[in-house]
Amino acid sequence: MQEFKVKVYYEDTDAGGIVYHANYLKFCERARTELLLSLGIEQDGYLKQNIGFVVSNMAIDFKLPATLHQSLMVQTKILKIKRASIEFSQFILNEQQNIVFHANVIVACINPVKGKPVAIPPEILEVLKSAS
Amino acid sequence: MQEFKVKVYYEDTDAGGIVYHANYLKFCERARTELLLSLGIEQDGYLKQNIGFVVSNMAIDFKLPATLHQSLMVQTKILKIKRASIEFSQFILNEQQNIVFHANVIVACINPVKGKPVAIPPEILEVLKSAS
Amino acid sequence: MQEFKVKVYYEDTDAGGIVYHANYLKFCERARTELLLSLGIEQDGYLKQNIGFVVSNMAIDFKLPATLHQSLMVQTKILKIKRASIEFSQFILNEQQNIVFHANVIVACINPVKGKPVAIPPEILEVLKSAS
Amino acid sequence: MQEFKVKVYYEDTDAGGIVYHANYLKFCERARTELLLSLGIEQDGYLKQNIGFVVSNMAIDFKLPATLHQSLMVQTKILKIKRASIEFSQFILNEQQNIVFHANVIVACINPVKGKPVAIPPEILEVLKSAS
Repeated sequence: MQEFKVKVYYEDTDAGGIVYHANYLKFCERARTELLLSLGIEQDGYLKQNIGFVVSNMAIDFKLPATLHQSLMVQTKILKIKRASIEFSQFILNEQQNIVFHANVIVACINPVKGKPVAIPPEILEVLKSAS
Repeated sequence: MQEFKVKVYYEDTDAGGIVYHANYLKFCERARTELLLSLGIEQDGYLKQNIGFVVSNMAIDFKLPATLHQSLMVQTKILKIKRASIEFSQFILNEQQNIVFHANVIVACINPVKGKPVAIPPEILEVLKSAS
Repeated sequence: MQEFKVKVYYEDTDAGGIVYHANYLKFCERARTELLLSLGIEQDGYLKQNIGFVVSNMAIDFKLPATLHQSLMVQTKILKIKRASIEFSQFILNEQQNIVFHANVIVACINPVKGKPVAIPPEILEVLKSAS
Repeated sequence: MQEFKVKVYYEDTDAGGIVYHANYLKFCERARTELLLSLGIEQDGYLKQNIGFVVSNMAIDFKLPATLHQSLMVQTKILKIKRASIEFSQFILNEQQNIVFHANVIVACINPVKGKPVAIPPEILEVLKSAS
């Protein structure tokens, strides 16, 4: 499991005084990017070889509101690795260790030009498996 | 079913050349707001009475990419009305009528101060039921 | 002068209860895009010919707050057309016709690969001049 | 001068492959918030006393594009402190120390209920002056 810290700024909140629901998806994407970067996987390099990673499914529970200037922790775990997709579980906790947000996220490996699923490159598969 | 048109601008896209995944949630929220406003339900008025509507769960399929300057149609249907929550089904279609995005969205009625579920006000329930 | 209507949704606001300051820039960009599209200028087509339009300077006055569900009007005027740049004046008004926001915006024509200014294509220049 | 690091994620970019222009304003706002927090100034506390800080003017130069996964440095300096406003100068540099963005930002102290300028509380003035 990887942990990634996020601070809530004005840009993340809405007129309800809490984090706007769609912005948790940004926090999760930052954390997945950092997880991949920490494993040496640079998405932009693969993009030039027509291999892209896109979110294909999410199942989300919004559990508790988060507010301005809170520090949140995004916990990211790889749940399942398939031939052309990776399933992540991502929890966001507040400073009191309460769960604010949970999502199961399936990221598909695709050829962005053709829009078709392709096999995850073997070197990525290997790194992901050793990390999960 | 209500239909709400959205145009894709630069702000909605990312370096992958397509709509950033979290931004579909904004499109859906705009459409739900317009559906409620068209039924005469003003969320800000209820907020002053400590009755708020927050997204509590989403199950999302990202089906196809959408690109800059496309016109998208958000179709919103009320699936289920419970004592303290409403379930919506929302499809986003591109100009070729292909499904770009689908989500089932549960919106909970809460007291935002206490963070606890509360019953949907009867006048809202009535309007929603007649619309679904 | 072109007029473009914008509705304020939750995504546009922040915990201060008003439109987040950076989001007015999105409203202005939407309006400039619609102005160019109405003149038959499609930025994506030119991008394939390595001609891009980017904001190079802005002088902004935030005059009044705007709040949730307000309808705003973005008024866009072309102030000056130079060899490699266009200067716009953009006002945002609320329903009471009060000025909420004003910006002078300089958009530069560049070669996005080299990052260097290039002359605005003559057919665009002509259309812009007839519109200003 | 305070330095604040920002990483560019997908959410920050647009279909032009670079950081969307309005998002630099978010980076600057994060840096100003951290500067104020580092000085012990908590904006949310003052908001409860009807003292708010809002951006009233910006003069912006967009100098160079920034791209996905770059690390940027936001440098924030207090230029001028007046009775009811603070002027900041903010530079954003890339890893090669090139200036990507510069803005002069005037933040006004207001009563958010009345929407009128008010004097900056003396304890904040003192802290700001010692920091500038």
